[in-house]
Amino acid sequence: MEQTLHQTVALLTHTPATLSALLRDLPNAWTSADEGPETWTVLDVIAHMNHCERTDWMRRAKIILSSGETQPFPPLNRAAHTEASQGKSLNQLLEEFSQLRTENLQALRALDLQPADLERRGLHPAFGPVTLSQLLATWATHDLTHLHQISRIMAHQYRDAVGPWSAYLGVLRCSGHSAP
Amino acid sequence: MEQTLHQTVALLTHTPATLSALLRDLPNAWTSADEGPETWTVLDVIAHMNHCERTDWMRRAKIILSSGETQPFPPLNRAAHTEASQGKSLNQLLEEFSQLRTENLQALRALDLQPADLERRGLHPAFGPVTLSQLLATWATHDLTHLHQISRIMAHQYRDAVGPWSAYLGVLRCSGHSAP
Repeated sequence: MEQTLHQTVALLTHTPATLSALLRDLPNAWTSADEGPETWTVLDVIAHMNHCERTDWMRRAKIILSSGETQPFPPLNRAAHTEASQGKSLNQLLEEFSQLRTENLQALRALDLQPADLERRGLHPAFGPVTLSQLLATWATHDLTHLHQISRIMAHQYRDAVGPWSAYLGVLRCSGHSAP
Repeated sequence: MEQTLHQTVALLTHTPATLSALLRDLPNAWTSADEGPETWTVLDVIAHMNHCERTDWMRRAKIILSSGETQPFPPLNRAAHTEASQGKSLNQLLEEFSQLRTENLQALRALDLQPADLERRGLHPAFGPVTLSQLLATWATHDLTHLHQISRIMAHQYRDAVGPWSAYLGVLRCSGHSAP
């Protein structure tokens, strides 16, 4: 299906409460463990999502509208979240995510985007020309890719505990890890 | 990590609110679409989870405690959910899930399981001997495998809309589908 602003905003609106319902006050064993060397914990994922809310989605939307293809987006630093999350609890990071998302959705509504705006283009540092529509669809799908990752990180902690049932649990065989 | 009852129950307790926060009142385009022929919609997934709450987890736990390895569990019918969900809305199915899960967690607590109980065995129709501990760990991981699947089904709807960003979105390359 095509991206529609209505569907995208609906999903973006649901994500903070989804992550809070899943993760808030869950035992640390679920949320502070990773999938092995060089992989993220659930806390790392939320810190990364907060970093994207701060520096990526709406900033890029505004660059498309103000500068078009005249300059590429500043690249996203996928390691920068570590510093900003230093010493914060998961509950604090979830609270931050909820607040950042609310602010960004307010900023998005304030743009009062029209169908023609969605076809406007910017310049991605790696991909070249991309549309505002693709950026907004990616924002929503990025929520889903990290919900997918979080469920996989958590399931990984029970990979031995489930015994032979691991054969029936697709999440334990997921190879859909995000590219670096 | 080992299964602990505390961690398992914590996750099982969080799932109904997680699914409701993610899915309730979301536009149908997200929840009534599948990933292609012979695949499930989000509504199918919730109907299947309800079927498992009704006929699988606690029934099998009680069989382990009452009959041990003397008789195999009745096999789970993975197609049976279709009938029970006929004509029901997603919001209704989410409500049912929440109620069934609450009842099952009450029944689990009423068993007052001790560490030695968790090592008791039953007979799985395909795997042979399994422990109560493995069954309970699988119950929690089954929630995660379907949260993983739901995020993948939804992301699939935007696979074209994201344009070149699909290269960075791991959920669009997930091959962790549950075995039949």
